[in-house]
Amino acid sequence: MYKAPINDLNFVINKIIDLKEINKLQGFEEISDDLISQVLVEAGKISNILAESNYEGDHISSKRNEDGSVTTPPGFKESYKALGEGGWTSLEAKEEFGGQQMPTIISAAVNEMWHSANMSLALCHLLTQGLIYALQKSASKVQQDLFIPPLVEGRWTGTMNLTEPQAGTDLASIKTKAVKEGDHYRISGQKIYITYGEHDMSENIIHLVLARTPDAPEGVKGISVFIVPKFNLSEDGKLKEQNDVTCLSIEKKLGVKGSPTAVLQFGEKNGAIGYLVGEENQGLQIMFEMMNHARFAVGVQGLSISERAFQQAVQYANDRVQGIPIEKSKGDPIIHHPDVLRMLAVMKSEIEAMRALSIYGGFSMDMANLTEADKEFWTERSSLLVPIIKGWLTERSLEITSQAIQVHGGMGFIEETGVAQHFRDARILPIYEGTTAIQANDLVFRKTIRDQGKSVNLLFAEMLKELENYKNSENKIVNKSAVTMMEAVSISKETVDHLIASSNDQKKSAVSGVNYLMLMGYLCGGWMMSRSASKAAQEIANANKSNDFLEAKLVSSDIFMTHLLPKIKSLAESIVKGDESILAMKPEWLNQ
Amino acid sequence: MYKAPINDLNFVINKIIDLKEINKLQGFEEISDDLISQVLVEAGKISNILAESNYEGDHISSKRNEDGSVTTPPGFKESYKALGEGGWTSLEAKEEFGGQQMPTIISAAVNEMWHSANMSLALCHLLTQGLIYALQKSASKVQQDLFIPPLVEGRWTGTMNLTEPQAGTDLASIKTKAVKEGDHYRISGQKIYITYGEHDMSENIIHLVLARTPDAPEGVKGISVFIVPKFNLSEDGKLKEQNDVTCLSIEKKLGVKGSPTAVLQFGEKNGAIGYLVGEENQGLQIMFEMMNHARFAVGVQGLSISERAFQQAVQYANDRVQGIPIEKSKGDPIIHHPDVLRMLAVMKSEIEAMRALSIYGGFSMDMANLTEADKEFWTERSSLLVPIIKGWLTERSLEITSQAIQVHGGMGFIEETGVAQHFRDARILPIYEGTTAIQANDLVFRKTIRDQGKSVNLLFAEMLKELENYKNSENKIVNKSAVTMMEAVSISKETVDHLIASSNDQKKSAVSGVNYLMLMGYLCGGWMMSRSASKAAQEIANANKSNDFLEAKLVSSDIFMTHLLPKIKSLAESIVKGDESILAMKPEWLNQ
Repeated sequence: MYKAPINDLNFVINKIIDLKEINKLQGFEEISDDLISQVLVEAGKISNILAESNYEGDHISSKRNEDGSVTTPPGFKESYKALGEGGWTSLEAKEEFGGQQMPTIISAAVNEMWHSANMSLALCHLLTQGLIYALQKSASKVQQDLFIPPLVEGRWTGTMNLTEPQAGTDLASIKTKAVKEGDHYRISGQKIYITYGEHDMSENIIHLVLARTPDAPEGVKGISVFIVPKFNLSEDGKLKEQNDVTCLSIEKKLGVKGSPTAVLQFGEKNGAIGYLVGEENQGLQIMFEMMNHARFAVGVQGLSISERAFQQAVQYANDRVQGIPIEKSKGDPIIHHPDVLRMLAVMKSEIEAMRALSIYGGFSMDMANLTEADKEFWTERSSLLVPIIKGWLTERSLEITSQAIQVHGGMGFIEETGVAQHFRDARILPIYEGTTAIQANDLVFRKTIRDQGKSVNLLFAEMLKELENYKNSENKIVNKSAVTMMEAVSISKETVDHLIASSNDQKKSAVSGVNYLMLMGYLCGGWMMSRSASKAAQEIANANKSNDFLEAKLVSSDIFMTHLLPKIKSLAESIVKGDESILAMKPEWLNQ
Repeated sequence: MYKAPINDLNFVINKIIDLKEINKLQGFEEISDDLISQVLVEAGKISNILAESNYEGDHISSKRNEDGSVTTPPGFKESYKALGEGGWTSLEAKEEFGGQQMPTIISAAVNEMWHSANMSLALCHLLTQGLIYALQKSASKVQQDLFIPPLVEGRWTGTMNLTEPQAGTDLASIKTKAVKEGDHYRISGQKIYITYGEHDMSENIIHLVLARTPDAPEGVKGISVFIVPKFNLSEDGKLKEQNDVTCLSIEKKLGVKGSPTAVLQFGEKNGAIGYLVGEENQGLQIMFEMMNHARFAVGVQGLSISERAFQQAVQYANDRVQGIPIEKSKGDPIIHHPDVLRMLAVMKSEIEAMRALSIYGGFSMDMANLTEADKEFWTERSSLLVPIIKGWLTERSLEITSQAIQVHGGMGFIEETGVAQHFRDARILPIYEGTTAIQANDLVFRKTIRDQGKSVNLLFAEMLKELENYKNSENKIVNKSAVTMMEAVSISKETVDHLIASSNDQKKSAVSGVNYLMLMGYLCGGWMMSRSASKAAQEIANANKSNDFLEAKLVSSDIFMTHLLPKIKSLAESIVKGDESILAMKPEWLNQ
């Protein structure tokens, strides 16, 4: 059973970010804590419906039929319909297209729940929201009016068609062709790894396809973006005949088995009809604009799958009796064994840091989108945070889902228990939407070295200023955490100095990128947890009484400082002292 | 394709341990480097046969038929037969039972290959060797003569029957009954997680079963061990009717799917006929005696699966072209991308440390078994090392197999690629034969606190003495690694001091156990790598010329010091500062 973490989400939204700043943004004037709390409660209810088909979806999986159609697992169709009918597919879209135009802080919170409940199913929602976002940004008014409303209503769904067999991370190698024909193009080529590329959950599927026109320049400068519907449309939006797109096969994957990952063939006959988005050869630019959105969403998935695995481990540890824990009695469950408690407590602490960072990241994106006064600041801040959120949250979800298995002992290895599914599902997260190395390259080259550390040093300065206040707190955990964090900021600063000083050798920067990304993840997580501790202590002092939630938050922060933040020290040492040793390893020596 | 790491095994056996010490042991006088090298080459050939059925074994899996029999995957039966016919099932056993009585340093090296090639299949060998070991130690002469030779010949196989639904880690709760009837007992009860509990690869299966006689004392003091054959035997060893043992089901597991994990029902009719090993109520003692052997073997599996995943990742990185690596040309494979190189180089370094530590561990067991002069020293040393080898090698195999997927990008998530299998297979290793927490309890309580750190401080002193020599090396990598290692020893010593000082609170020790185990793993791994570097440098100096293998060994050591050893710092901080924060987390707070 999944239980939406509504208390913690409310805490983060009310205490970690400043809701008053959100209210200053156009369209968000009415976003109150009460409204948010209501939305979270309602979303929590729907998430239980989604959760019902999660286990079965993994075991039955999506299947391709002989006619090329794809049947999704039992319950998926109904769940996606419930999302649409409840208005959840319209949360993010603009009002003019029938959307509710809610800020990212809310959609991130709600999306966390969908992906915890059923990541395979929620992937369809993630892709569709990404498409809506892209069309809102870059499509023509006619295209927007035709395609967006049915997506917002949940009647249609969307896909992203980037990857080809020879073109994964490297989009420059894309070969899919687009030939102009009147007001449209004819698209032909093969795309792989297309999530929900074919399925039975919606009336139509709108593919966003990267392709190349015959006279396009080589490489990434010659990529264009096209809308390719599964069913062609009359001018008034009615569905006509099927377009020339075929699902050749569905991949047999390690995880997210409920979600169909298709190989799509465009143009087996005359070429699929496609509509150019924006101008020719502007494809990469358009994709980049939606990349922050998509990468952030995948980062949230890392949080989601961690939370789900954690909840399952806690439940098991409360139920399972095995051995007599130290200072306990016969019949006491394994949660009282100190090492089981350690695993769960560290998981909880890290998940809370992830959640706070994801909502803060959403806040920075809302600010970047809509503020006028500090637009540059918030644009830089959100650009800095997105690769950290994508990389750190997804990498850490591997460890957390693995620990959830460990808590189960032998039972964790048996598929019937269900916890192994989360471990398998999580494994895609540090790969798709840009591998961790790609996030790290973005962080180290574009977000750190390019501005000579300005943006990241601004973040460090903000942290230090805030930590100075916490140092004076009367609460021991708060001031101890401030001291620990200040040391961590100082180590991080030295690391950034090293990265910039040695940036004349790009290979060194690239070697250190992933370690730097992880270091920044722990640092930002620690920042969020020291802020959490301070707010919890304040609330206890103000109310002059405590409660379990706030006490637990203080302990959780203390655990972050002693069990997770220290990892910064080893990462910093690897960065500062370890780049040359890696580059000294000749690739051919690896074959011995 | 799997390629046995014969060069590195030869290096470790010839340079890291002292073969002359092995030659002083009774029965091992003739063990020469030439002999070992020959054995390794021959084993390498057989490992290729085993490797052929590994992928198919994962996909087809073992299956239970309606009559309760179990069909193993195609090729498994033939492979196990090849092991027997090649004499590989007789490597470890004593000569009097038809064995070759080889030292553990050789069996460990060979077992590494079997488990790299096909872990699911090799598990049958692992269990059978464990049974032979147990019977040699504890069974009567009559039992030994009857049961051991067919196991040694590979015609029969063995199992360990410990776990019951309510009794996993906690053997005190075992309920299976054994009632005396003439010269044998009647066994009844259910056992779960029985690896190769039923299969079609051998003529007979010999189960070693923990059970309780009617008047046995409660808890672990009332456990006895019984031999229960699948087919009963006449006095001259001929197979008779089937015993009262039934395979009720086969588990659907996350990994090692080729290996059948059975639920066995003993005594559905009149009770299975079983023969007492040793005395009544001595069962736990007998199991403990074979535990070092079994845990060490599982540690080696951690090395094996890491090596296999690494080789696959290296091959993929050499073949796959994607993007143009920094300072490289179009068409150069991804192995030239600095982050891919980093992942692979760090994997290589850690695997070499694992291999050296496993062979050194085998050496310490050989010495403990057979030396007369330093028996106490080597007994303590091997007892100290076994939980470290079991815990560290298996925990780290999770990370290494995960990184192997990451190197593959999206392809790693597709089951057809085969690399995901290693990630799934590895996940059982930190669980069975005692979870990492159980290893950590053993290490912190029995091997560290009980003797007030004497044994571990002896190890530290030996390291420091050796490192003093390396500090004077003319080779920069060797002396740098010595300095880094000396700091690490000093941090580790402080950590042990803390553990002993705070040991009056057992819960604190238990909280820190796993972190301490991991710290000791990195430290011992670092010790092995600094020794490796020194030996490589010596060999280069002696021969006055170098080669790729030795150069790579130096770089590999440098990588260990800069990318793996630094983890000691964060672990030490968690141990010294983090025990109280965990214990402050109330179990009920985890439910929020």
